[in-house]
Amino acid sequence: MKDAKVRLYVDQPLGVGQSVPLGRDQAHYLFGVMRLAVGAHILLFNGKDGEWRAEVVQAGKRAGELSCIEQTKPLQMPPDLWLIFAPIKKARTDFIVEKAAEMGAAMIMPVQTEYTNSDRIRQDRLQAHALEAAEQCGGTYVPEVTDIQKLDRLLADWPEDRNLMFCDEAEVGAAKTLGAANGEKWAILIGPEGGFSPKERERLHAHPKAHVVSLGPRILRADTAAVAALTVWQQQLGDW
Amino acid sequence: MKDAKVRLYVDQPLGVGQSVPLGRDQAHYLFGVMRLAVGAHILLFNGKDGEWRAEVVQAGKRAGELSCIEQTKPLQMPPDLWLIFAPIKKARTDFIVEKAAEMGAAMIMPVQTEYTNSDRIRQDRLQAHALEAAEQCGGTYVPEVTDIQKLDRLLADWPEDRNLMFCDEAEVGAAKTLGAANGEKWAILIGPEGGFSPKERERLHAHPKAHVVSLGPRILRADTAAVAALTVWQQQLGDW
Repeated sequence: MKDAKVRLYVDQPLGVGQSVPLGRDQAHYLFGVMRLAVGAHILLFNGKDGEWRAEVVQAGKRAGELSCIEQTKPLQMPPDLWLIFAPIKKARTDFIVEKAAEMGAAMIMPVQTEYTNSDRIRQDRLQAHALEAAEQCGGTYVPEVTDIQKLDRLLADWPEDRNLMFCDEAEVGAAKTLGAANGEKWAILIGPEGGFSPKERERLHAHPKAHVVSLGPRILRADTAAVAALTVWQQQLGDW
Repeated sequence: MKDAKVRLYVDQPLGVGQSVPLGRDQAHYLFGVMRLAVGAHILLFNGKDGEWRAEVVQAGKRAGELSCIEQTKPLQMPPDLWLIFAPIKKARTDFIVEKAAEMGAAMIMPVQTEYTNSDRIRQDRLQAHALEAAEQCGGTYVPEVTDIQKLDRLLADWPEDRNLMFCDEAEVGAAKTLGAANGEKWAILIGPEGGFSPKERERLHAHPKAHVVSLGPRILRADTAAVAALTVWQQQLGDW
C-alpha cells in the first residue's frame, strides 16, 4: 500500500468510492506545494466520517479530484470538554488554540475578563489554526472556536450539568486531582496573564460547579497553563 | 511596602544590605525601558540565595546600583529532573526551553537523534531564554541548558540511579502513571517531530531505567508533548 504522508480536512462527505472535488487552494497545496501526482494517496477527514485513504484521480493547477478508497480510522469524538481562555498576545493565542486541538478539547472559547487586554479576536483565523492542528495531530474532529464573550455572561448562563475546572494561581495547596466521575461534561478555565480580578476569583470560588486545581508553585504563562490543565484533565477523566 | 513589579536575575551575591552594581544592559532595562527611578523596589534572584527585595539607590544610563532590603522567598530548587529533547524549528525549540524552566526542570538537554533535523543549537540563546522564563515565572532557580549531544552517547553513559520517562507515540495502551517512588532522579525524553527510529525505540524499550508513558491517542507536537510530559511527572512525583 502506498504511504500517505499528506492529511487534509475537506468539507465533503467521505465514503467508499466517493469522489471529492478539490477547490483552488487545496489543489495548489496538494499539486503545487506537495507535488503530488495522479495515483498518489492522501488521508482525508471531514469531522464526521472518520479518516479515509483517497487517491488522486485528477491533478490540475486550479482544481483536482480525489477518490476515497477505504476508511483508515473511525470518527473519534474528543471528550465533551470546553477550553475557556482569555486571549493574550497573538502568537500565544494561536498556540493555545493549536494545543487545545491537539490535546483533544471539543470547543475552544475565548473570553474577556476584567484583566484581559484584548477584547477582539480573529475567529476565522483561530478556527483555521484549530483545523490545521487537527490535520497535523491525526485527529478526526475539528474543535469549534467560538467568538469572544464576556466571562461574566458565560458564568451567568452556565449550564447546570457542566463542571468547571478552574486553575487559580493564587490558591496555594489546591487539590492536584479532580476526584470526579468519568463521562461528565467539563470545562477548563485559564485566566489572563494578569490573573483574575478579586471579584472574579470570589465568583469562581463560589461557583457550584467549580473545582479548583493547582498547577504547581511557579507562575505559568497562559499557554503553558492551558497544556498543563488539559493534561491533568485528560489523564484523570479524558481519553488518554 | 512598595510594589515590586520588576523581577531580575543577577550574577552577584544577595543578602541584607548587600550592594548590587548593575551593568550596562541591566541599567538600560531598569531605567531606560522600565523607567524606574531611585527609591523604586525590584525583586532579585541569583539562583543561589533565594529572592530579595531591593531598592534602586543609583540610576544612570549606563550603570546603577541596588541595595538588598529583605529576602522575599527562600531558594526553591526544582526536583532533580532533566528534560531531554530533540531540537526542532527555532520558535518551537525556544518554547520548549521556556516551558521547561516554567514547569520546573533542573536541566535542559538538547539531543541529536537519528531523525533530528538540526544538529546545532545556540546554547547561549537558549540559556538566555531559560533565564528570562525564570524571571517571569517567579522561580528562584535557572535551569542549565547543556550543549547538544548525541542520544546514543547519552544513553551509553546513562547514570545508574536516574529513571527515564520515555513518551512513545507508537505505544498504544502504555501506562498513564509512573508508579515509582518519590525523591528519585528522573529524566524525561521527548522525541523529534518524525519520532524515534526503529533502532532507537528498540534501545529505549530495552533500557533498564526506562518507563514508557502514553500521552493520549493524538500525535502531539514536540513542544506540546514536553509540557504534557512535565505535567504528568510533576503531578505524580514532583513539586506540584
